[in-house]
Amino acid sequence: MAVPPSTHPRRLLPLFLGLFQGALLLFFALFITYDEPSAQAEDTNLVANQVYSTFPFFQDIQVMLLVGLGLLLAFLPRYGFSALTHSFLLLNFSVQWALVLQGLLHHFHHGQVHLDLHKILISEFAAVTVLISVGAILGRASPCQLLLMATCEIPVYLASEWVIVTCLGVLDVGGTITIHVFSCYFGLGVSKALFRATRQSPHPKESPTPRSDLMSLVGMLILWVFWPSFVAVLCQPGDAQHRAILNTLLAMSASAITTVVASSLLERDGKLSLGHLQNGSLAGGVAIGAVADMAMPPVAALALGSLSAVLCVLGFKFLTPLLGKKLTLHDQCGIHNLHGLPGILGAAASTVAVLVASKDTAGSHSSQLSPMSGNASEMVEGQSGDRGAGGQALSQAAGLAVAGGASLLAGLLTGAALRLPCLAQPPERLCFDDSLYFKIQDQAESPGPDSSAEEGALALKEQV
Amino acid sequence: MAVPPSTHPRRLLPLFLGLFQGALLLFFALFITYDEPSAQAEDTNLVANQVYSTFPFFQDIQVMLLVGLGLLLAFLPRYGFSALTHSFLLLNFSVQWALVLQGLLHHFHHGQVHLDLHKILISEFAAVTVLISVGAILGRASPCQLLLMATCEIPVYLASEWVIVTCLGVLDVGGTITIHVFSCYFGLGVSKALFRATRQSPHPKESPTPRSDLMSLVGMLILWVFWPSFVAVLCQPGDAQHRAILNTLLAMSASAITTVVASSLLERDGKLSLGHLQNGSLAGGVAIGAVADMAMPPVAALALGSLSAVLCVLGFKFLTPLLGKKLTLHDQCGIHNLHGLPGILGAAASTVAVLVASKDTAGSHSSQLSPMSGNASEMVEGQSGDRGAGGQALSQAAGLAVAGGASLLAGLLTGAALRLPCLAQPPERLCFDDSLYFKIQDQAESPGPDSSAEEGALALKEQV
Amino acid sequence: MAVPPSTHPRRLLPLFLGLFQGALLLFFALFITYDEPSAQAEDTNLVANQVYSTFPFFQDIQVMLLVGLGLLLAFLPRYGFSALTHSFLLLNFSVQWALVLQGLLHHFHHGQVHLDLHKILISEFAAVTVLISVGAILGRASPCQLLLMATCEIPVYLASEWVIVTCLGVLDVGGTITIHVFSCYFGLGVSKALFRATRQSPHPKESPTPRSDLMSLVGMLILWVFWPSFVAVLCQPGDAQHRAILNTLLAMSASAITTVVASSLLERDGKLSLGHLQNGSLAGGVAIGAVADMAMPPVAALALGSLSAVLCVLGFKFLTPLLGKKLTLHDQCGIHNLHGLPGILGAAASTVAVLVASKDTAGSHSSQLSPMSGNASEMVEGQSGDRGAGGQALSQAAGLAVAGGASLLAGLLTGAALRLPCLAQPPERLCFDDSLYFKIQDQAESPGPDSSAEEGALALKEQV
Repeated sequence: MAVPPSTHPRRLLPLFLGLFQGALLLFFALFITYDEPSAQAEDTNLVANQVYSTFPFFQDIQVMLLVGLGLLLAFLPRYGFSALTHSFLLLNFSVQWALVLQGLLHHFHHGQVHLDLHKILISEFAAVTVLISVGAILGRASPCQLLLMATCEIPVYLASEWVIVTCLGVLDVGGTITIHVFSCYFGLGVSKALFRATRQSPHPKESPTPRSDLMSLVGMLILWVFWPSFVAVLCQPGDAQHRAILNTLLAMSASAITTVVASSLLERDGKLSLGHLQNGSLAGGVAIGAVADMAMPPVAALALGSLSAVLCVLGFKFLTPLLGKKLTLHDQCGIHNLHGLPGILGAAASTVAVLVASKDTAGSHSSQLSPMSGNASEMVEGQSGDRGAGGQALSQAAGLAVAGGASLLAGLLTGAALRLPCLAQPPERLCFDDSLYFKIQDQAESPGPDSSAEEGALALKEQV
Repeated sequence: MAVPPSTHPRRLLPLFLGLFQGALLLFFALFITYDEPSAQAEDTNLVANQVYSTFPFFQDIQVMLLVGLGLLLAFLPRYGFSALTHSFLLLNFSVQWALVLQGLLHHFHHGQVHLDLHKILISEFAAVTVLISVGAILGRASPCQLLLMATCEIPVYLASEWVIVTCLGVLDVGGTITIHVFSCYFGLGVSKALFRATRQSPHPKESPTPRSDLMSLVGMLILWVFWPSFVAVLCQPGDAQHRAILNTLLAMSASAITTVVASSLLERDGKLSLGHLQNGSLAGGVAIGAVADMAMPPVAALALGSLSAVLCVLGFKFLTPLLGKKLTLHDQCGIHNLHGLPGILGAAASTVAVLVASKDTAGSHSSQLSPMSGNASEMVEGQSGDRGAGGQALSQAAGLAVAGGASLLAGLLTGAALRLPCLAQPPERLCFDDSLYFKIQDQAESPGPDSSAEEGALALKEQV
Repeated sequence: MAVPPSTHPRRLLPLFLGLFQGALLLFFALFITYDEPSAQAEDTNLVANQVYSTFPFFQDIQVMLLVGLGLLLAFLPRYGFSALTHSFLLLNFSVQWALVLQGLLHHFHHGQVHLDLHKILISEFAAVTVLISVGAILGRASPCQLLLMATCEIPVYLASEWVIVTCLGVLDVGGTITIHVFSCYFGLGVSKALFRATRQSPHPKESPTPRSDLMSLVGMLILWVFWPSFVAVLCQPGDAQHRAILNTLLAMSASAITTVVASSLLERDGKLSLGHLQNGSLAGGVAIGAVADMAMPPVAALALGSLSAVLCVLGFKFLTPLLGKKLTLHDQCGIHNLHGLPGILGAAASTVAVLVASKDTAGSHSSQLSPMSGNASEMVEGQSGDRGAGGQALSQAAGLAVAGGASLLAGLLTGAALRLPCLAQPPERLCFDDSLYFKIQDQAESPGPDSSAEEGALALKEQV
């Protein structure tokens, strides 16, 4: 177990972050401004309305990512500080990095980039991919590794999103394909390249305790409640947004009930597994994203929610152990079950929905589909209408292939880079332990005090 | 203690839920659609404004019910998973069931039901009654019993709400009568019929620990913060809604302070009881619902808040023990103190407010009362104005009688049905224990490890 | 250690609160009404829009103060109930008290005061100062002392805010000077006068445990997420509010990353300190308040956020121990580091921003600054434009001096009053302990059971 000298990696994190923050300041000083304040009273009203219509959704999403997802990941009993803090750090780093890249790549007009809430929202979406991918290697990677991963993932995401949404014209208002499928396979690629063929034996600090599981359950509930905001924020105001909210509510409601059914049938004695509940209840929200604003009957949302929950629970029960055994693929939080399988299902559903919608409405299709397909980010107006339903269905499938394939490849490359020894990957015995990264004054409360003392001694020996 | 064979009840839950979910899919496929998307730009603006004005309130209510109420009920230290998960499951089940019943009963026009956010909101209100009633038997009933209870309560609630609001024209914008009084007496009826004359001795797992009480306190704060959204969401936009928000804020603020006064006076040494705080602080929100949007001076809201808090604390101190002794009535969470007494007080206040408002404004009364009384659900326009203040006051009293009487009767019948042996009511020793329903890996942290081992063995013996 | 007789102080709290609540009812009955309902449809729309534009911000702030700040202060492991309950009680008391004083002092027109959401919001801001100041003496003061402190602080705050904003015309939309600097030095004054030269040795119950630190971390995240609402709620709708939200987001994002850098550099082994994270991440929000809506480039917000986080972390590491040693100044939560230093920095930044803005835009300055400087509370229109940039810069500096000086003086006087023996300051051994104020049934879970038993016995002896 080759532990790098303790002084070096300890300083890498502040060095890297400090340099990044300095470069960011420079970049902002040179290129980023706000819009000129508008003198017209009408414009003021317009801006105010934009704020009132976007900001509550934006706040909901921030609560989801920082409080909801942070707590959901805090199911590791001695890794709660790290789960919350690393999410917090990665979100902020990724949003800033995505702002820089967006400025450089897309919005470089007249030498100046005008910052607004919408650009921050798009960056927030980019950051979500990082927070999801981290789930595959949670507890076994150092903060430096996570930051390098974010550094690589954000540009790949922005490129992939540009190809999928702008070039292919894929309809995916809630990010099923561009965010969930992408980040899942990126994370799995990283995990595979980072851990290679090492079979991870169960770690003593890996099992949740009742207390940490309760925190995680509260995190799930927060995510569940605010998920409709995430799906609907970029919809066109009016019917499309209304429908996106309703479809998401229906899908997640069906997921919740179906998860209980599936978990109860699969577990011994009909007891519920908390892992299933914490993930399956959210599967409907992942799957519905690609079709949330489309013209489809409400029953389709319910069916999609139920089906994705079944897939998620089955994935935890059978697929994750299988992948671990056959491919030595390590997926700590089961992101393949929550984001991969429901994401693929959602993409498939979007293909079907496009075809069915075209049959239902025949000639009037193109005019009906386009007003609902408003992915506010960069969609080319009317594009989907021009190409017909078959072409659009092909696009959806192509989008899925790009999201899955490119991310897996980029993830494998990123994972290989994360093996750099200077990134201070924690040794097996110190995984899943906050005390490696946090000054913790009192360990009296943590479970198993004697084992803790022993490992603390080990830790000290390795660090000195 | 006749424990049913373990295989049977364990399968009943997924069977029941699975069948329900299947039937729901069928029902939605046949009858439920969305509104046609509107082609007009004006309509789009209208829909968008409806979304922006309702959706934030709706999200607040979801946070209240899932996170706030879930945590509030998690004061039982070894029953936190069940409190959160059962609330989650019951909410989703009840909303779906209420959507079906609403579709069948009220909105059956042209063979199709148009789903929108408002209908989901009404269903959410129906689900609240179930979550409140559960408080009476929390920890002593199985999930199957709770689901059967929800199955019975939702139609009775919808019928009672129709009688009270549509037929009697009762003004009750915040659900004081239709929701709180109704659900309280329904729950007490269920409890009485389910437990009959068994005197419940204090259970070792029933006492909160500091940690579980802290969770519950956080839950109370979340409920307290978002309560104004619950009261005001169905108000007519403009003055009535503004006034409803302000009245609720004032009532709850007075409740908070009065609870501290009352608890401090009643407890030994002037110490505060956490149970009083967790409930009394919310009593004002229960009582204000019936009058929140009426034309009354702000001092009335303050007085109502104070008085309801006093009633709630006195109820906990004197009435609950008395009812337990004299009537062997079991009320686990003290719902009679939080929902029953303040609900009756609020109903009485609404009667007085109607009479006083008529005196104050004499001739101009009818025209002044009606614009504020906008219970958006199904109120018949102008009805209250036509009948005069005396008639309206009678209506309010009649509404209270219907809500209390019908619910008690229906609750008693439902409770009797819950005694069916196949519903797997947990035996006394296994009450208040998550391990009966959840796969829990690590019990090391739970208080009293040796007693836990012993009871675990007992549990195993009974299940085999 | 002169402990007052136990019966007396125990009754003072309900007596004081009860009298206050009674007086409040009387005052409301005599003087406070709602606005007359408007008959015009246009006015109704206006009120509705005001509700929709203010209420979500208001709810965010309530969540911040009750859930976020409550949990943040719950880092004391055996003082969680007190942290949450005292915040809850003080917020409600202070809001009501501020409503009374506002009614008496400012808004006394026509014998009647019209209550609306905006007035409650202003009172909420006044209450924030109390919640911040409490941080200096948290755990060592009785509820009666805290209530007396609130009673004194609210009128001083209202007077100081009137001088600073209305008389001096200081621009401070997010309360950097009027709220943060004011409450910090008020709290430190109270602490100094209350504890005088007693050197506080580390208390055994003072160190956070992992569990209490986790709660506190969640509280910080909630505050962090909703902070933009606090800064932007009083801005003029449109560009100014949009800019205030963006500046706050940027400043807090920079704070988060810089805190990790600074903490990691200062702590042994590069580990992170939770205290630094819990405070430093919020420092940017404190500093940005005075300039949030001004015309300045986005890079300034980032720089301000970074700098304030550095100041905050350095303050915790070096200044707090120094002040404790040299001045025997006790600052339990480090409010000087979170509110004092970043507040002064923000005030300085506002002076610079005013000067720079004037240079940039030369003649067009006055017309450009005024539309953004909309402090909705009581700003005199056009005032800042008339006096020129130099005068405005002087105003900002004068405002800082008033906020710091007046509050320190008033705090010292208040602290002296808090030494009254009838206020029942807890003896050293019983500090930081919920069991002094709450009926706690089960102490089994708390850390260090034997020491707890011993101190429990001591507590009993002293109370009898």
